[in-house]
Amino acid sequence: MKLADPLNCSVAATLEIIGEGWTLLIIREAFLGTRRFADFQHHLGIARNILSDRLKKLTRHGILKRAPIGPGAKRHDYRLTEKGRELLPLLVALTQWGDRWINPDSAPLTMIDRRDGKPIRPLRIQAADGRPLTLHDLALAPGPGATEATRTRLKTLRDEH
Amino acid sequence: MKLADPLNCSVAATLEIIGEGWTLLIIREAFLGTRRFADFQHHLGIARNILSDRLKKLTRHGILKRAPIGPGAKRHDYRLTEKGRELLPLLVALTQWGDRWINPDSAPLTMIDRRDGKPIRPLRIQAADGRPLTLHDLALAPGPGATEATRTRLKTLRDEH
Repeated sequence: MKLADPLNCSVAATLEIIGEGWTLLIIREAFLGTRRFADFQHHLGIARNILSDRLKKLTRHGILKRAPIGPGAKRHDYRLTEKGRELLPLLVALTQWGDRWINPDSAPLTMIDRRDGKPIRPLRIQAADGRPLTLHDLALAPGPGATEATRTRLKTLRDEH
Repeated sequence: MKLADPLNCSVAATLEIIGEGWTLLIIREAFLGTRRFADFQHHLGIARNILSDRLKKLTRHGILKRAPIGPGAKRHDYRLTEKGRELLPLLVALTQWGDRWINPDSAPLTMIDRRDGKPIRPLRIQAADGRPLTLHDLALAPGPGATEATRTRLKTLRDEH
């Protein structure tokens, strides 16, 4: 899927890679510790060809890396890279929204802090100094990669609001 | 897309609704203040039939609501509901990951705090008392909606790690 995005923002760029159901479930499985092709297949009930395709894509984009199963082994498994592990807030955001709006009072899983066993706090948007921010506190500014189209759109947004 | 998910977690349930590129870009547009069909179409360059389909789906799931453009008007526009506005952390997570890993040093947009003009802080996973948590601090516990399959899988996870 090639998303035409005149705003040129990172949402579209990210969705190019992970904006598809199975891909994020594969990443979730990797966070749960799944590494082998057969285990991904077993836990997700996904067709071999789709799984193979998505694992290749995730490896090509550096979210997973292939590693030999043991020293000198010919077979490989798949492990999250740093780039992949940094998808954790995205997975937490997906989970918390679903727990609240799709499965209220019946969340299947709870993410807890190992230390005190308590559920983690809902993600919040925070200012640089830690103050919690609401939608109305936020504004968009052009970043270092802003194109002319980005700037034009931002100007229109400011004029409208 | 029907995702078979033996773990029965909210990630899969959420992806059923929003796990598709255009859908999240439409939601991003709604956050930017876009309300009218023609404006969504213009800003996203999306085909009418796809846009129409996705707006219907988002309205059916209560993420957008249709509202008359003015008092007594026959035409409608689309506005985020509370359920929709609560997708903000998910959009921020997508943006921050993309800014770091796809557009490093060339983020097209920066989300800032209106009050001080500074970029917002990267999302962090926090314990109930606010302590920042890493992946290794997290564990999963069965929630009120855990099925037998959920419990069995969680037990396997604990035995493995």
